[in-house]
Amino acid sequence: MHLVDSSRNGHPNAKPAPKAVVGRVSLYLRQLEALQRQGQTKTSSDQLGEPFGIKNAQVRKDLAFFGQFGRPGIGYHIDDLILVLRRILGVDKDWPLLLVGLGNLGRALLRYRGFQSRRFHIVAIFDSDPKKIGQTHQGIVVEPLDAMCKSVANHKATLALLCVPADAAQRVAELMIASGVRGILNFAPVPLAVPPHVSVIAVDLSIQLENLAYKVQGSLDGVSWAG
Amino acid sequence: MHLVDSSRNGHPNAKPAPKAVVGRVSLYLRQLEALQRQGQTKTSSDQLGEPFGIKNAQVRKDLAFFGQFGRPGIGYHIDDLILVLRRILGVDKDWPLLLVGLGNLGRALLRYRGFQSRRFHIVAIFDSDPKKIGQTHQGIVVEPLDAMCKSVANHKATLALLCVPADAAQRVAELMIASGVRGILNFAPVPLAVPPHVSVIAVDLSIQLENLAYKVQGSLDGVSWAG
Repeated sequence: MHLVDSSRNGHPNAKPAPKAVVGRVSLYLRQLEALQRQGQTKTSSDQLGEPFGIKNAQVRKDLAFFGQFGRPGIGYHIDDLILVLRRILGVDKDWPLLLVGLGNLGRALLRYRGFQSRRFHIVAIFDSDPKKIGQTHQGIVVEPLDAMCKSVANHKATLALLCVPADAAQRVAELMIASGVRGILNFAPVPLAVPPHVSVIAVDLSIQLENLAYKVQGSLDGVSWAG
Repeated sequence: MHLVDSSRNGHPNAKPAPKAVVGRVSLYLRQLEALQRQGQTKTSSDQLGEPFGIKNAQVRKDLAFFGQFGRPGIGYHIDDLILVLRRILGVDKDWPLLLVGLGNLGRALLRYRGFQSRRFHIVAIFDSDPKKIGQTHQGIVVEPLDAMCKSVANHKATLALLCVPADAAQRVAELMIASGVRGILNFAPVPLAVPPHVSVIAVDLSIQLENLAYKVQGSLDGVSWAG
């Protein structure tokens, strides 16, 4: 079956899908899951993009990156497409996560329900503060940074949330990478230098807020444009 | 002076710059500020993009969206370019922020130093929980949701951080908009339907983590590709 073969490893085209495509496919998966909960069995590219304001042609183009899923006049089988997209995105299995840095943001992430519902589970917590080491949060004992290597191996964890202050971020990232981490969600407001086999996605909230301020400023100045 | 005239309102081309361009210009501004702190007075497009792995041609193209700033053979005057980019991005003034929803994430955002350093200041906090209303956090008294309209007018606040649970997000967003909010940074993992004069930027951490998982999965499968 073409559908299964082409998407087995999520990168059927050797080249991975661009970040924007993967982000939109995540949204389609959410919409498919919502429709499944409502008892629907089939859907269309119109309906998949509708809640996000994404046009049907874009939906078809995005999905076509990974294979041929829908049929003209019939549409998409919701159950099948959910299974395939979960496998493509890598969320058909559990992903253990390390949380490094237990400040306010770290504590918020520890309780963020959005991760758990997508099969991301924080399995270990690290901090450099002796007062925090040994504390238990959400059933997990906080460990010192030098326990990271052993913990990564024990949990087979490849993803980590980096929530340390800016001036410690690069050093802690290097420790993560030396411990075997392959993907870092970076909440520290500094860019990280990492080797090519490691992926980083930066979550810089002030940049997103600046972008918002730029858009709002334009509309406040009375400039007319579609947002 | 072309430089000043063309960038006064941040949208010299009538059409605003694409999100990706604005995001990169935010990064260049950070690099300029770092160079200024180090005592440097001039810089090049090479140096502006270097910490982020952005090529000089891209830097020049991004800046050209807003005007003609550098001079061949001389480069950019750091002090001047900082002033202009701050005005373009709208961060040459203070932006009062509303924080709506004081869960763990809300509490983390309240202490997030990245906002303050970019002249974003949380000035009011709202929650629907009677136990939280009246509490003081970082010197701000938590108010009930029905006090939002008055508070927006008092503070002349146009931006808000939406940190409520998914099932309350749309309703609370509508209350924000009715109160006069023009830009929402949405941390709830659901898309918001808003009128055209309102801008929303979604911060969906699980989508960013899925994107990271997709990249890492590819590299774990032994597929060779540049990150």
